[in-house]
Amino acid sequence: MYGLIGKFVAAPGKREELLSILLESTTAMPGCYAYIVARDTTDASSLWITEVWEDEASHRASLSLPEVRDAITRARPLIESFGEHHVIEPVGGHGLNAPGASQARG
Amino acid sequence: MYGLIGKFVAAPGKREELLSILLESTTAMPGCYAYIVARDTTDASSLWITEVWEDEASHRASLSLPEVRDAITRARPLIESFGEHHVIEPVGGHGLNAPGASQARG
Repeated sequence: MYGLIGKFVAAPGKREELLSILLESTTAMPGCYAYIVARDTTDASSLWITEVWEDEASHRASLSLPEVRDAITRARPLIESFGEHHVIEPVGGHGLNAPGASQARG
Repeated sequence: MYGLIGKFVAAPGKREELLSILLESTTAMPGCYAYIVARDTTDASSLWITEVWEDEASHRASLSLPEVRDAITRARPLIESFGEHHVIEPVGGHGLNAPGASQARG
């Protein structure tokens, strides 16, 4: 699996609008096992995203989907800066909607 | 919802063992909507965890479960240090096994 943990800093007052766009863009992305959008609790302008994909190719392909391209176009002016960005190799756990993931029993 | 994004640095050569313990401890935790364990791709000793819980109380309660306490006891000597630790407020996305989560259609 392939994944990302990233932080976005929204333009002033734009975090909720950015968040809505990020949530809608999670619709029907092939190979997407998890896409979790969260508010930072210490910085009122920041968001975190954790993404899990079948592989890097699935993630790259998602960026060409018309709805994702549209979301990126609308989100870009709401982003003041990009914070941390970590490429991860997810192994398993709970909450991965993946056929082959090492899913816990719970 | 309540969540955490955290980084663990394993003791030399102990990342895989630590990873196995973290994966098994995701079993049957009430109120746990996601618990994703991943390897860092740039540092061979580091792991990342993204956790999503119903609320902070669910997370706190999990730390008292016998299997979690046992896992913590076994994991502790394998951890060299704790890296970043971010408390997040998850809003929705894909991959949250939560009844009330703002789940995408896909």
